[in-house]
Amino acid sequence: MQEWTQLWLSYRPVKAYERADFFAEYTLEGFEAEHPVIRNALRELTLGIGSMLGVKPESAVKKTPAGGLRIRRDTSIGSEGYSLKAEGDGITLAAPDEKGVLYGIFHLLRLVSMKADIASLDVLTEPENPLRMLNHWDNLDGSIERGYSGRSFFFREGKILVNDRIRDYARLIGSIGINGVVINNVNVKGDATDLITDRYFPELQKMAEIFSGYGIRLFLSLNFASPMELGGCGTCDPLDPEVVTWWERRIRTVYKALPSLGGFLVKADSEGRPGPFTYGRNQAQGANMLADVLKPYGGLVIWRCFVYNCTQDWRDRITDRARAGYDNFCSLDGAFRDNVILQIKNGPVDFQIREPVSPLFGGMEHTNQMLEVQIAQEYTGQQIDLCYLMPMFREVLDFHTCCRDEKDTVADIISGRTFGNTNMGIAAVCNTGDDKNWTGNDLAAANLYGFGRLAWDMSLSSAEIAEEWIRQTFDLSPESERMLRDMLLRSREVYEKYTCPLGIGWMVNPLDHYGPSVDGYEYSRWGTYHRSDHLGLGVDRTDKGTGYAQQYRETNAAMYNDPHTCPEELLLFFHRVLYETRLKSGKTLIQHIYDSHFEGASEAKEMAECWEKLRLELDPEVYERVRERFRRQIRNAEEWRDQVNSYFYRKSGIPDEKGRRIY
Amino acid sequence: MQEWTQLWLSYRPVKAYERADFFAEYTLEGFEAEHPVIRNALRELTLGIGSMLGVKPESAVKKTPAGGLRIRRDTSIGSEGYSLKAEGDGITLAAPDEKGVLYGIFHLLRLVSMKADIASLDVLTEPENPLRMLNHWDNLDGSIERGYSGRSFFFREGKILVNDRIRDYARLIGSIGINGVVINNVNVKGDATDLITDRYFPELQKMAEIFSGYGIRLFLSLNFASPMELGGCGTCDPLDPEVVTWWERRIRTVYKALPSLGGFLVKADSEGRPGPFTYGRNQAQGANMLADVLKPYGGLVIWRCFVYNCTQDWRDRITDRARAGYDNFCSLDGAFRDNVILQIKNGPVDFQIREPVSPLFGGMEHTNQMLEVQIAQEYTGQQIDLCYLMPMFREVLDFHTCCRDEKDTVADIISGRTFGNTNMGIAAVCNTGDDKNWTGNDLAAANLYGFGRLAWDMSLSSAEIAEEWIRQTFDLSPESERMLRDMLLRSREVYEKYTCPLGIGWMVNPLDHYGPSVDGYEYSRWGTYHRSDHLGLGVDRTDKGTGYAQQYRETNAAMYNDPHTCPEELLLFFHRVLYETRLKSGKTLIQHIYDSHFEGASEAKEMAECWEKLRLELDPEVYERVRERFRRQIRNAEEWRDQVNSYFYRKSGIPDEKGRRIY
Repeated sequence: MQEWTQLWLSYRPVKAYERADFFAEYTLEGFEAEHPVIRNALRELTLGIGSMLGVKPESAVKKTPAGGLRIRRDTSIGSEGYSLKAEGDGITLAAPDEKGVLYGIFHLLRLVSMKADIASLDVLTEPENPLRMLNHWDNLDGSIERGYSGRSFFFREGKILVNDRIRDYARLIGSIGINGVVINNVNVKGDATDLITDRYFPELQKMAEIFSGYGIRLFLSLNFASPMELGGCGTCDPLDPEVVTWWERRIRTVYKALPSLGGFLVKADSEGRPGPFTYGRNQAQGANMLADVLKPYGGLVIWRCFVYNCTQDWRDRITDRARAGYDNFCSLDGAFRDNVILQIKNGPVDFQIREPVSPLFGGMEHTNQMLEVQIAQEYTGQQIDLCYLMPMFREVLDFHTCCRDEKDTVADIISGRTFGNTNMGIAAVCNTGDDKNWTGNDLAAANLYGFGRLAWDMSLSSAEIAEEWIRQTFDLSPESERMLRDMLLRSREVYEKYTCPLGIGWMVNPLDHYGPSVDGYEYSRWGTYHRSDHLGLGVDRTDKGTGYAQQYRETNAAMYNDPHTCPEELLLFFHRVLYETRLKSGKTLIQHIYDSHFEGASEAKEMAECWEKLRLELDPEVYERVRERFRRQIRNAEEWRDQVNSYFYRKSGIPDEKGRRIY
Repeated sequence: MQEWTQLWLSYRPVKAYERADFFAEYTLEGFEAEHPVIRNALRELTLGIGSMLGVKPESAVKKTPAGGLRIRRDTSIGSEGYSLKAEGDGITLAAPDEKGVLYGIFHLLRLVSMKADIASLDVLTEPENPLRMLNHWDNLDGSIERGYSGRSFFFREGKILVNDRIRDYARLIGSIGINGVVINNVNVKGDATDLITDRYFPELQKMAEIFSGYGIRLFLSLNFASPMELGGCGTCDPLDPEVVTWWERRIRTVYKALPSLGGFLVKADSEGRPGPFTYGRNQAQGANMLADVLKPYGGLVIWRCFVYNCTQDWRDRITDRARAGYDNFCSLDGAFRDNVILQIKNGPVDFQIREPVSPLFGGMEHTNQMLEVQIAQEYTGQQIDLCYLMPMFREVLDFHTCCRDEKDTVADIISGRTFGNTNMGIAAVCNTGDDKNWTGNDLAAANLYGFGRLAWDMSLSSAEIAEEWIRQTFDLSPESERMLRDMLLRSREVYEKYTCPLGIGWMVNPLDHYGPSVDGYEYSRWGTYHRSDHLGLGVDRTDKGTGYAQQYRETNAAMYNDPHTCPEELLLFFHRVLYETRLKSGKTLIQHIYDSHFEGASEAKEMAECWEKLRLELDPEVYERVRERFRRQIRNAEEWRDQVNSYFYRKSGIPDEKGRRIY
């Protein structure tokens, strides 16, 4: 029995596939068969086609002008892109580089796996985002911060693991176009600080080599205090010559050992991590120092914008954590080096089920930016509750920042289309672990798959991605495929309904971030408050409140500032609203809270019932594993429903119009 | 420099003490100088008198009929008791046994240390409680459950420590009359299960020997599942012959190695610990099985009554955790063996700052009982906040259970006076650790000292005990002594004022039990709810509610059942009360909440200011250590004040009459 699954690369036999002959032979023009990426691409072709179609693709002795698979170099296609064109009895895969070939092969295998007809295939695709990254929050001891799928497959007890699972991981994420991976937690402590020392170079070299065979660059998270912790410097002030010299020497050694290293991800001045603020320097001074040191090696500094005061006094209603990213970074627009990228979380706070888009998108014009999303379901059900995140990501990408008359969406900005920046892209905090099925909940793999696909092609719809993933992962009747797709597509809304109402967020257990605790963050130091009393709830972030709404471009600022134009799903994020205020639906706020919580819990149950209907078509192990999670989701949804409803009933004294049970 | 202090046994020089000559010589009649307890008593005499008075007591060659210290056996005095009588130029210490001699010597040393005049000394004292025990919640890895004074001095990394600190510990607690110690946590897991195996016997023998030299019997906490975990039995059903046989063999081995072992403390069927309920047996069947096995060796089974459902649904208003002890045990009155003692927490729930007395006291007549109190300040400030607990313990001991027309107090019951039971007494969960000063906060040592003194003599007042402790511990002017005494005496009330109002309890952070979290336990599984809404709060435990009040004897049941006769400090424990209800003071409930919280925080500050006044008279290290804790207490009190007031203001909408700042 296999120790781990192959997810969407399971390559189940495809019966009666009409175009099997397309794959009998292949030719290679302008590429070396021995190039590691080409070798892996061909190996994958052989494995996939052999397994699915029972055909072993052979390298043709001579060129096959008409039949088979013709792979050729075409430098007119953009970097990493490829075209696929069916012609006569064969297909031509053209690409400007080896990675394009790899991605093209995976595309073909995907089509076969989906039983798609490729007779009239004609595709040209180039990745929209130059950087398509995964961030692992894995610790050297093997634990994973906010991990819900077992332990790390990169680290165990202070050691780096290099094995077949790493290779399969590289295949999986390579197949969806991921081209960069940060393997260690952004909170760099203890052993992880040593990743830039000899102690770990041999293993990192092997890891980098495996990755690069699948077009993936290795990145590391960096401890900004390394000069003190490793170098014995008395400071890590980025303007201190001793510190700079220390970094120069250290980075020279690192790149000697790891020449293909992509660069570093840095969480500085955040939640207790050291950073430039400690020395009265700004974030640009911190990032640029590292950027200058990395420049000769082509290394990137990916600098997180998650900088805020995490020791706020709950009594303080002036300070607003939502403002912090913009306040700390926007005035520095243009001050960062070309090889610095600011990595910005989708929302201004922290991966809640509903947040507005960070005003840094569209706020900064002359700064490289990456969007950071989280497919690890920290606040979105922890891979117990079903929560397919593509609808949320789509909303973020489609958001009009109003920074230009056109090409003003987040997708336009991070792809570089809006301002012409080059080092741009998208990153996701990853949801994998060493569980047999990689993602704990089998259905959570849709988020990993979907993220990669969306990172490549931001025009894909949530439904398209779900359909692709389902078809490749399961073997279901068309009707069941539709049912599962619809489960995925509604799951985020269901989760939102039974958790925090109307964008308020943070009614979650403070420690593990699973399950309700309405006041759990209300009197804490984290800047996360709902401010409810006997009359109403919500945070006034308008020009009469914290002024956060004014961080947006004018059109959006005006929209958010007015409760009548503010999108209702974000109403409580921007406004304090009385329980008896009528919403657009005609319901009062309190009745909306009651209704949505009853609905959400009931809909969670419906999703679980849908899963039951799929039982006979599913692998029993998968069926049971997900079923158990639906059981827990139902309990969780009921707990949310009852706690949130009881909390607001007890506080408002206003009964449910429908007289349902509230405690 | 010493690694640890000697607390009240510091034996500072006493200048110009008039009766030094009383101690120049001693004689021993009817006791062997080489008996371990006598040896220790004489050693202590030599140490203490030498250090305090600069005199070395010499064994007189011949009897000294008039002068010096005459120690003689007098079997007319009750076990462990002693008399002290000044006659002419000397003192006679008469005792029925060696322990009496030891206690008498410590009494004399206490008097000298307090500079008391002993010229007309005439004392006869016998301990009121046969068993005067300390329970340590120390784990084998060295951690202490709910410990606030460092790590364990009994265990480290799975090993037992036997060293000078153990001896000093035995001296300290022997000096206040403690005669039994449980060294390991009642939650017995992992290595601790092995304490009844060869693995630990050699060290336990040494420990037992040190203890017994100071009149202290060693006890162990026992894992009820040992037959399964150690013996490979398939069950730990107390009625299973295989289980009984296993215990018989094991206990025979234990007593062969540790013949002086006092017996075992057992936490069964509680908070996840295994017990007889698992097998459909009642608590008596579980305890009696062990008692029968221990009988031949004179061993005791101390069986905790802390048995309740810890997976309650917060929605359930029928189940009442406060009822659980009585419900589980009272009907078993008379069913327990003579060598079983039920150990009953002072209140029905769990060591809150204010609870009624457990109705098991006075409820059971034919069962040996021990009162369990907690000097480890789990819910009472964690040895950061000052909370002198004698006033609380006094209230418990003085409580009239109304089980008889006279001799009906808890003190009467646990001493055996009420029902004539013999294996009776009092135990405290201990507050020590390997901190230099033993108890984290130097002032928390008053609780250790006071518990021992009170366990011996339940007629002592809180003030008397405080005065004794202060005089022996510090070297203060009479005025400063009074000030410190008053700080101690008011501290419990201050803590109560700024924490949970009127006996409701449980508004504490659920994990560490320090600091406020009004709703922290409100939606949890622990059976600990305040049930507040926009109109009022409190739990109805009357005959119209959970019926808990009816577990008391009739007079008390009636008193608690009626909000007009219910003691106001317990009002919310027994009744749901509206915010606008007037209390006896004429204030509304909500105004009382506001006022007491403002007062409590302000009084915490006053106590800290008093400490400042003592600075010049204190050891600088002690001064600083306590000062730092007062700083934290002030912050804690302000946090309690603001969170509790804001919570109820937001929920009730009723403003503070005095217009003070509420958030």
